[in-house]
Amino acid sequence: MEKAAIQKELIALLGKDKVLYEDLDLMYYSYDSSFLTKLEPVNPCAVVLPNTTEEVQQVMKFAFENDINVIPRGAGTGETGGCVALNGGIVIDLSTWDDIVEIDSKNMQVIVRPGMIHARLNQELAKYNMFFPPDPGSSQMCTIGGMVANNASGLRAVKYGCTEQYILGLEVVLPNGEVIITGGMKARCIKNVSGLNLTKLMVGSEGTLGIITKIRLRCWPRPKARGIAMAVFDKLDDAPATVLDVYQAGVLPSGIEILDSSAIKAVNQFKPDINLPDAEAILLFEVDGNPPSVEYEGNVIKKVAEARARSVEWATDPKRMAELWEGRSVTATAAARVRKDGSRVFAGEDISVPLDKVADTLRAIRALGEKYGIQVVNYGHIGDGNVHTAPVINPEDPKEVEKVLQLVNDIHLLAIELGGSTTGEHGVGAVRRQYAELEHGRAHNYMKEIKKVFDPKGIMNPGKLI
Amino acid sequence: MEKAAIQKELIALLGKDKVLYEDLDLMYYSYDSSFLTKLEPVNPCAVVLPNTTEEVQQVMKFAFENDINVIPRGAGTGETGGCVALNGGIVIDLSTWDDIVEIDSKNMQVIVRPGMIHARLNQELAKYNMFFPPDPGSSQMCTIGGMVANNASGLRAVKYGCTEQYILGLEVVLPNGEVIITGGMKARCIKNVSGLNLTKLMVGSEGTLGIITKIRLRCWPRPKARGIAMAVFDKLDDAPATVLDVYQAGVLPSGIEILDSSAIKAVNQFKPDINLPDAEAILLFEVDGNPPSVEYEGNVIKKVAEARARSVEWATDPKRMAELWEGRSVTATAAARVRKDGSRVFAGEDISVPLDKVADTLRAIRALGEKYGIQVVNYGHIGDGNVHTAPVINPEDPKEVEKVLQLVNDIHLLAIELGGSTTGEHGVGAVRRQYAELEHGRAHNYMKEIKKVFDPKGIMNPGKLI
Repeated sequence: MEKAAIQKELIALLGKDKVLYEDLDLMYYSYDSSFLTKLEPVNPCAVVLPNTTEEVQQVMKFAFENDINVIPRGAGTGETGGCVALNGGIVIDLSTWDDIVEIDSKNMQVIVRPGMIHARLNQELAKYNMFFPPDPGSSQMCTIGGMVANNASGLRAVKYGCTEQYILGLEVVLPNGEVIITGGMKARCIKNVSGLNLTKLMVGSEGTLGIITKIRLRCWPRPKARGIAMAVFDKLDDAPATVLDVYQAGVLPSGIEILDSSAIKAVNQFKPDINLPDAEAILLFEVDGNPPSVEYEGNVIKKVAEARARSVEWATDPKRMAELWEGRSVTATAAARVRKDGSRVFAGEDISVPLDKVADTLRAIRALGEKYGIQVVNYGHIGDGNVHTAPVINPEDPKEVEKVLQLVNDIHLLAIELGGSTTGEHGVGAVRRQYAELEHGRAHNYMKEIKKVFDPKGIMNPGKLI
Repeated sequence: MEKAAIQKELIALLGKDKVLYEDLDLMYYSYDSSFLTKLEPVNPCAVVLPNTTEEVQQVMKFAFENDINVIPRGAGTGETGGCVALNGGIVIDLSTWDDIVEIDSKNMQVIVRPGMIHARLNQELAKYNMFFPPDPGSSQMCTIGGMVANNASGLRAVKYGCTEQYILGLEVVLPNGEVIITGGMKARCIKNVSGLNLTKLMVGSEGTLGIITKIRLRCWPRPKARGIAMAVFDKLDDAPATVLDVYQAGVLPSGIEILDSSAIKAVNQFKPDINLPDAEAILLFEVDGNPPSVEYEGNVIKKVAEARARSVEWATDPKRMAELWEGRSVTATAAARVRKDGSRVFAGEDISVPLDKVADTLRAIRALGEKYGIQVVNYGHIGDGNVHTAPVINPEDPKEVEKVLQLVNDIHLLAIELGGSTTGEHGVGAVRRQYAELEHGRAHNYMKEIKKVFDPKGIMNPGKLI
């Protein structure tokens, strides 16, 4: 079907206010944060902005009948090209459909539409002494729908797990326009083992099975206290070893972050005032819970970490906590500025490896950076082995582009080889599908067959995930 | 294929030691703990006891080629008929295949074979200061494979969630004999969002998709301290209201159990020494964590519960904790003994309802018991709304049997009507499939289609779950 005809039909269905079709508007939807879409942005043929389930159904039915691709999109903060119409089609922008349907505090849950922003949800839940624990770095921008689609996590996954752990049920519009409710048609219960777990199948399916239009989330009681420990290491291997020591001392911090020497240098260059100690690695532990528990666990961490660290500081004072955390909070920005003519490449940025392979991984990435002559800054959620890498290149230089693509390919293969995964939390999207066979072997065939059950025509976000 | 021919072929494949075919042996496999299989036990045509993946593959290939049903079985502690060959076929008894493949304490995980017993696994993990948190009532008998197949939970799901939360990867033999590895072929990482989540799809699939032959589990640091609070209520509604008050005070206990007046009476009749206070409801809170945290949370619970309860006691002394918990620990046995000529019926025993509907649920079950003239004892995991009901009848009396089947049907419908589920943790099996359509609506069709992807001939545990 011709682009103009599609646009016309969508306007007839939803009205002119809910359809974008001007090139300038479409361009905004031609990329996300991935390097791939920086290199090869692709405009969709139209964008729709529905805010009812019926509108989503209308668009899906139209697309299904006419074999048009449909690509759901939240805030576009993804780093995998997952929400871009790389093979053409209609983008369904769900970011403006952001209501809280109900805060059901009596059952410790909340029902939201997909466009709800993560930080805003937690602001609302705080009024009821509740919170939704996963804590992505893009909290101020990212949508709950996007978090569900990608099974996002972030800083607190060590203790609180990933988004999936909190999803009790979903409303999903399938490619043929049918609506299903997972987790029970009328259910408001917390525990439910009835039937195959379609909810957890939808979480992390990256928009390849259907459009998520409603989300029922379990909330947790909001912790009352928090503390931060910073430990500085002269030997890289002592950092992951200390993480394990802390676990074996019976403490599961809410988050454990690492900055290796590359990240420390990047931060100090970007903001000299932060003045991080020159070291092979810095660990930041975040502990939360009730006040005496936080105090106790902070002291355990301090004592345990002192066995291997050059220095350890433990703080519960908000000002000092913010100071200790500042290096971590600017790392992503600092990484992007290590070269004046350079910019950060979001590719190979999300590998996850076993804890006992973190040090080897960081050393190997350093060696790969040297091999290709590319500066790479490493940081990440060491508590669950999730390493974020930031290669910085001049994207205008085709040779550097070619080299960085080789580098990130090597990083992905390294992760698999070391017993890890190409993605801990950002997802597969368009940029990591090529590793699916290697990661999953024959299981990958069954993923494809399951996709066909929901999407027999292959119109849902094609070219992503599987 | 004739029974004798199947037996002969299996002996040829696995050897005589690994095949059971005598009627007396097969009878043991004709039932589980469900009322259904007490009423209508069905012998399988043979039982195999494999302890290699290859042996499971051989049996599956043979069954696939000859259209013979295959039913996996763990310890047979299930209450849904899920592991019984109700439509005939071969039972694969995995209970003797119970090794720990590896305790990978450096990555906080363990790899086991399906027959590993829950309690024994935790004994082994304790040596490494780790534990697998879900805590089913049948811990001393039930297998990890069975827990995965049913997504079991038990007493600690409030804080620690269900089995699925800890499953990182599975080896599964599919009906055609193919082996897939979910969660990454070589993966040892904790966080992994690559591909559709086949692991979580397999968890709770009740042996309808394949045979689980290896399980990679995430472990948690073992908590150092524990405390128990008992609160006694004159008004039933005050019990769930107090649970919510505790959550809103920022405390998430590891477990919260309820005994209503029926359970209190049953316990006192069974063991007068326990001498539970005469009341409308008793709540038991279990708190775990580090010592100061446990002390703090115990005091919060005491203070919060005192607002509504007649009395509250908080204990950390092991002897006193055991005394407070004793009533709960004998409830199931006590329930079965409320009538001298009676026995407990495991049917309708596992509904899950929203927290704010627990009191209504308990009242409605009481009224249903009166309507049908059947004594029903109620207890359960109130923290997540999971109510266990124990109707007690004379199973030799066909009229009582008929009545109890009506009663449990009403209980299941009540749960769905109140926004709950027919099963919080025991599973669907053969006994709750009739509610699948009502619970899941159109989503149920997609469960059936997914089943076909893995089991096109419908030989995997037919007549169960979906």
